[in-house]
Amino acid sequence: MYDNVRINGGRLWDSLMEMAEIGATPKGGVNRISFTEEDRKSRGLFTTWCKAAGLSVTVDKFGNMFARRPGRSPELAPVMVGSHLDSQPTGGKFDGAYGVLAGLEIVRCLNDAGIETERPIEVVNWTNEEGAILKPMIGSEVFTGALALEDAYAMTTPTGTAESGLDDIGYKGDVALWSYPVHSYFEAHIEQGPILEDEGLRVGVVTGAFAQRWFTLKFEGLEAHAGPTPMAIRRDALVGAAHAVIAVREIASRVDGRRGTVGCLNPYPSSPNVIPGTVDMTIDFRHDDEEDLIRMTEELAEAVEAIAKDNNLDYELTPTVHISRIPFHETLVGHVRKAAEDLEIPHCDIVSGAGHDACHMAKVIPTTMVFIPCEDGISHNEAENITSDDSEAGCNVLCHAVIAAANMTQDLELSS
Amino acid sequence: MYDNVRINGGRLWDSLMEMAEIGATPKGGVNRISFTEEDRKSRGLFTTWCKAAGLSVTVDKFGNMFARRPGRSPELAPVMVGSHLDSQPTGGKFDGAYGVLAGLEIVRCLNDAGIETERPIEVVNWTNEEGAILKPMIGSEVFTGALALEDAYAMTTPTGTAESGLDDIGYKGDVALWSYPVHSYFEAHIEQGPILEDEGLRVGVVTGAFAQRWFTLKFEGLEAHAGPTPMAIRRDALVGAAHAVIAVREIASRVDGRRGTVGCLNPYPSSPNVIPGTVDMTIDFRHDDEEDLIRMTEELAEAVEAIAKDNNLDYELTPTVHISRIPFHETLVGHVRKAAEDLEIPHCDIVSGAGHDACHMAKVIPTTMVFIPCEDGISHNEAENITSDDSEAGCNVLCHAVIAAANMTQDLELSS
Repeated sequence: MYDNVRINGGRLWDSLMEMAEIGATPKGGVNRISFTEEDRKSRGLFTTWCKAAGLSVTVDKFGNMFARRPGRSPELAPVMVGSHLDSQPTGGKFDGAYGVLAGLEIVRCLNDAGIETERPIEVVNWTNEEGAILKPMIGSEVFTGALALEDAYAMTTPTGTAESGLDDIGYKGDVALWSYPVHSYFEAHIEQGPILEDEGLRVGVVTGAFAQRWFTLKFEGLEAHAGPTPMAIRRDALVGAAHAVIAVREIASRVDGRRGTVGCLNPYPSSPNVIPGTVDMTIDFRHDDEEDLIRMTEELAEAVEAIAKDNNLDYELTPTVHISRIPFHETLVGHVRKAAEDLEIPHCDIVSGAGHDACHMAKVIPTTMVFIPCEDGISHNEAENITSDDSEAGCNVLCHAVIAAANMTQDLELSS
Repeated sequence: MYDNVRINGGRLWDSLMEMAEIGATPKGGVNRISFTEEDRKSRGLFTTWCKAAGLSVTVDKFGNMFARRPGRSPELAPVMVGSHLDSQPTGGKFDGAYGVLAGLEIVRCLNDAGIETERPIEVVNWTNEEGAILKPMIGSEVFTGALALEDAYAMTTPTGTAESGLDDIGYKGDVALWSYPVHSYFEAHIEQGPILEDEGLRVGVVTGAFAQRWFTLKFEGLEAHAGPTPMAIRRDALVGAAHAVIAVREIASRVDGRRGTVGCLNPYPSSPNVIPGTVDMTIDFRHDDEEDLIRMTEELAEAVEAIAKDNNLDYELTPTVHISRIPFHETLVGHVRKAAEDLEIPHCDIVSGAGHDACHMAKVIPTTMVFIPCEDGISHNEAENITSDDSEAGCNVLCHAVIAAANMTQDLELSS
């Protein structure tokens, strides 16, 4: 009965462009780090749009925002659809914002068509997905109870704590976390990889997400003067760190599907004529194959041990983030796949290499995702780009899948 | 006639320890970066001590300090002796301070012995030798005219400019730069390398200083998300930088006497889950053999070209510092060697691997240096250490050489 419903692709695009003006960077990206003025402004614009669409907006104690459209049975658990409006320091216009504004566009579309769903629909904006400060995906982690609110509040940021950051922008809400049942959660997102574009497809039916293991690695050698200190007696922590960067690259390149990245690396004391005595660095490992991910960590431990020995360095390799392989909910994945088929939009199944708020949600609430291609697979980059046509296609698939879920009268088993 | 003159080693040591309280770090080093409160305090203590020794203290327009003891012929060009009181952020107690306070101890010793030299003697404290901010050895560079005062003033620091920095600590003096002839310049310093200690010697007769070539190197690739971006298509600037760190190490290790160091390396945007799109780094090459130093730079250029190609990166390799091999003045080197022989202090000829204010002075004024051993060859490190006996031996050699120069009635030819 909703076969002819189509979202308004032009309106969605215009909203994406207007949102991208907040924190716009000279290179065409956005800088909307959590707890900044830009974060505050983007939340304000989202609120204004939600209210204009007749939604009631609430903010929970960790700043997560929920904009509700009532259903025919307002007492039923709602279908949530959303993502995040925060960005990396040099992020793109679509990472996160696409999922939030696609959720909003669905509601606008239902309003236009005068369609009432059985269940309420809530458009969500999660706090601090990016992890540019704090850890990534913390808003959904706190919401789902995987991280205690008081522990999250106490986390330090460059300007204070998470709690003071929420206070600073006026988004420490008063609504309790996860205070009512949620039927299901949908998140649309740019792929952040090259697969859909390479295959000429418009939509990814996301069946799950990569497992992740993150580490910090510290090498300690001996600071010394760059001039008189002979090469043979040096204990240069940066030489050790350089070998570790290359080892991470080699380990990740050894088996298809592995990912390994060093994103942060800080030599100390950082003076041109001082041999670095200490280097701190981060390592991010991901894989669809959880057993092989464990092998990666074993290979890393061996490599670091050998590097430290070869370069006469001490080291500390510390696990920091551990996320298991996430399977998404089969019924919801089926809704997305069927929507793509019915709409005749070219699609394939795909596994997410990135972490998303959907990964936390999937542990406690039936969840799935919809991907759209991004140009050259680039994200976390000011050059990140999508086409308006793909944006529209992905949002139509999301819309039909959300309508299907919002018209389910029965609850879903999480383990399905 | 001065054969029996000996400096007071205990007094010198006490002065070193008292000066080291200014900017003292928990690990036993000092943090006396230029234009900080610690810089101001160390200059104040030096002034107090100089005045107590009857010296007249002047400050030039770049903050260089000169404490004069008149000679029998006060109209003659003075002999200068000194070094610097600033330090690296995690520097040691002796790098620089030893040379300034050894100069002061010579004057105190001459006062005690009632000795009047033919020429005036000036104890010097140069501004910002370390280059922890600004470029290294800038005070002597400006003094000798190698760098124009207005250009030096305009250089930016973390808090403003060099000029505002001097104003902040009250050491933008009113005396013109190099406004009277200087007969000769002596600088005592810790070796900052392991040679004297390894050979069981107490004094290095410094015949010159290594040539230096510094570079900045920027790699540019493509920022992208650490999860979904397959390894094969990445343009990871940090992987390029890591190969460059190892190339610098390999080039410097290939031929005896070469030195190569990467002290600073900054990936951008520095987020654990973003592939670094840009890395800036520094390279410091040194060598006693100027022709082989040129070969090092050629090898670097080839290596960087290959690394950029292999990793699909753009790069900019920019020369920043170029210091020629410095020969010290044969007559003055002879005075130092003779003093060590007369005093029967074990010594050898040595070439400085580090840059010193003496290197700028040597280009325009007859100059030499005296080295003493430092523990394990370590400097630019809070663990930097010397023995009181070596401190005393080096200062006695310096004292006798300075007296010899200060009693020369003739001027010296620079080209000698």
